[in-house]
Amino acid sequence: MRKKLTIGLFGFGCVGSGLYEILNRSGLFNASIKTIVVKNKDKKRPIPQEHFHFDKEVILNDPEINLVVELIDDADAAYEIVTRAIRSGKHVVSANKKMIAHHLTELIDLKNQYKVSFLYEASVCGSIPVIRNLEEYYNNDTLSSVQGICNGTTNYILTIGQRRKSFDEILTDAQRLGFAETDPTLDIDGFDAKFKLQILIAHAFGVITLPEDILNIGIRNIKIQDIQYAREKGLKLKLIASSEKIGDKVIGYVAPEFVKENSFAYDVNYEFNAVTIEAAFSDRQVFKGKGAGSFPTASAVLSDISALQYDYGYEYRKKETTQLKYQKEFYSRIFISSTNPDKLNLIDFEQVEETFSSKDYAYKIGTVDFSKLSHQLYRDHPELFIAFFPEGEHLFRLAEKRDGEKCNKKNLHSR
Amino acid sequence: MRKKLTIGLFGFGCVGSGLYEILNRSGLFNASIKTIVVKNKDKKRPIPQEHFHFDKEVILNDPEINLVVELIDDADAAYEIVTRAIRSGKHVVSANKKMIAHHLTELIDLKNQYKVSFLYEASVCGSIPVIRNLEEYYNNDTLSSVQGICNGTTNYILTIGQRRKSFDEILTDAQRLGFAETDPTLDIDGFDAKFKLQILIAHAFGVITLPEDILNIGIRNIKIQDIQYAREKGLKLKLIASSEKIGDKVIGYVAPEFVKENSFAYDVNYEFNAVTIEAAFSDRQVFKGKGAGSFPTASAVLSDISALQYDYGYEYRKKETTQLKYQKEFYSRIFISSTNPDKLNLIDFEQVEETFSSKDYAYKIGTVDFSKLSHQLYRDHPELFIAFFPEGEHLFRLAEKRDGEKCNKKNLHSR
Repeated sequence: MRKKLTIGLFGFGCVGSGLYEILNRSGLFNASIKTIVVKNKDKKRPIPQEHFHFDKEVILNDPEINLVVELIDDADAAYEIVTRAIRSGKHVVSANKKMIAHHLTELIDLKNQYKVSFLYEASVCGSIPVIRNLEEYYNNDTLSSVQGICNGTTNYILTIGQRRKSFDEILTDAQRLGFAETDPTLDIDGFDAKFKLQILIAHAFGVITLPEDILNIGIRNIKIQDIQYAREKGLKLKLIASSEKIGDKVIGYVAPEFVKENSFAYDVNYEFNAVTIEAAFSDRQVFKGKGAGSFPTASAVLSDISALQYDYGYEYRKKETTQLKYQKEFYSRIFISSTNPDKLNLIDFEQVEETFSSKDYAYKIGTVDFSKLSHQLYRDHPELFIAFFPEGEHLFRLAEKRDGEKCNKKNLHSR
Repeated sequence: MRKKLTIGLFGFGCVGSGLYEILNRSGLFNASIKTIVVKNKDKKRPIPQEHFHFDKEVILNDPEINLVVELIDDADAAYEIVTRAIRSGKHVVSANKKMIAHHLTELIDLKNQYKVSFLYEASVCGSIPVIRNLEEYYNNDTLSSVQGICNGTTNYILTIGQRRKSFDEILTDAQRLGFAETDPTLDIDGFDAKFKLQILIAHAFGVITLPEDILNIGIRNIKIQDIQYAREKGLKLKLIASSEKIGDKVIGYVAPEFVKENSFAYDVNYEFNAVTIEAAFSDRQVFKGKGAGSFPTASAVLSDISALQYDYGYEYRKKETTQLKYQKEFYSRIFISSTNPDKLNLIDFEQVEETFSSKDYAYKIGTVDFSKLSHQLYRDHPELFIAFFPEGEHLFRLAEKRDGEKCNKKNLHSR
């Protein structure tokens, strides 16, 4: 029997209003939205003004409300709402990846303490049920990697970019179509994908790391020549969120990658998202769907609500039992390019495989110590484009510095 | 805490031996295979002969064994093993789609009566966790269709077929590579896909139908000209298992379909399987992975074993609450072709849209009453190739014969 849910909804944008529509008008679920709290008093909304409240206490202090659905943008405000709701013994469904990524350990402890469910499928890859699958289906023992195209805006830009439009033109297109925020930094620089990756790593491997420990390199500095290079080699550039288990370590990063035709990512175009999960015996599973936008997000929220009616909660079993540790040091094969050949020296390569130089474009391919790359480096030098090259060959071995063992450069290729 | 599982294993082919390897040698799972029962005493096997028993009672009468994993081919023998194991209070994991499809209602009643779990993720699309997702993630209220490429052998044949090899050559190739059984009837004629579809319909919509109520048309009669036709139109032929909710009815069939480039099926090639699930708001989700073979199957068996350690069982909530009924009558847009133009008259069209005729090849496209198609018709006339044409437009409206309402042919296109 489905549990009756009385919902307090924070936020009434596209997702919130879609959710209202299906829950209160269809009568399909034994769940209804009792109270809606929004921030802006003056905004025009599709249902009459008397449905809205502006004080969060109206929901948080209502004992009849047993589920808070939080669909607002502001991560700090979301954090306060979610923690207060949990402390009031209410279940919570949230889509706020940034807030979740920054506070995951605390939120898990809190929801355990107050014995409520805290679900957030909508926070990662919209309609793709990847958290639930990692949590319920893929055993930590056999899982070896999770990679994804987790950001629709950058994937849209990279898809259109293959047609040689300029970055700015494409970004304007994407904004017009609603795929990109007015301030696209979170998307373009890979922060959005990084928050999602951090949540994926938690549910895949039971390892909770901090967003600042995951390197994110975005697509802001991509040049037409980089796209040209990819095309000549039969590759595509995609912004990949990647995590992998190597021995008892887990590594993760968000960066552009040159992907081959046989990659899961090659045919994932426009605003689509995809996640691939690799596990012992099962080879690669690919989950593809729409990752952004109101309806895909609403569908994930609905699934969480539906699961809550049967008392579902994430159990974080992997977190309790894992022996894995997150590691920031390893070697990678990368591609850097610049309009200024001198700038290529900003990155210290362990080994250089190829260099190319012309009047207005130069690139270098080789192996670098991953820990020498940083988001700051990429932001400080807008002429420097960094990509991993290519998928499936970028990892060589973990740097074993802590053991004092000197990395044998000659063996870098032996993986 | 993971429950300890003591396993009795039936069958030691590729899947069984892979499972043995990971469970007994890796020590990763708190589960071990105590007894293996096989049929053939003389077969050479990768582990010493003393590990094998030949009498099923050794497992069925052992009270220490709390899980039976059934991985044999013979559906009748599997039925006896599974029902006896359940009656002995043992959990069961099975991969036998034929046995499950034929006895599902009875098996559900039985496992409820004896309060054990009966899991069978491996029976449908190998490593793709589609049953679990339908069971746990996709609410019946919002789900609208499930379609899949569920048979690796036929997909391999159709993929290679685009290169204009003859059907027999390709089949021999597929057998050599291990994708096709020596007797490929189950695959080629769509029975294997139909059994899987029947299981998918049960978990998607809560409707348990019988395999004989689902039309299966295979790819046996495909001609080089049919492939040529598809190529000219920018389409591909794929064997699709399809189920859809229309109002309070569910329809289902397995048949070749001409698919367009934007179809989930277009880029699913060789032995790969894929399933697409359509639900309100979420658009189409696509799950892609290897559907056949020992490792993908073993991975699904492993996931079931892992879930059992946390007392997981299918709850069939949709079956308890659904108002949907399975319906065999509806109208479809089909393509039939023949080397003999007269044979095209064997099927009575409601409406003909196109006809083509030449010395040695003729086809007709139009609308037919689905209930006039039959597996027998297709088997009796090997010169007759039948395909649905094209995906997404083949359904017009349910035939409303039971209400005595005459189907208005003029409105067939109005959907």
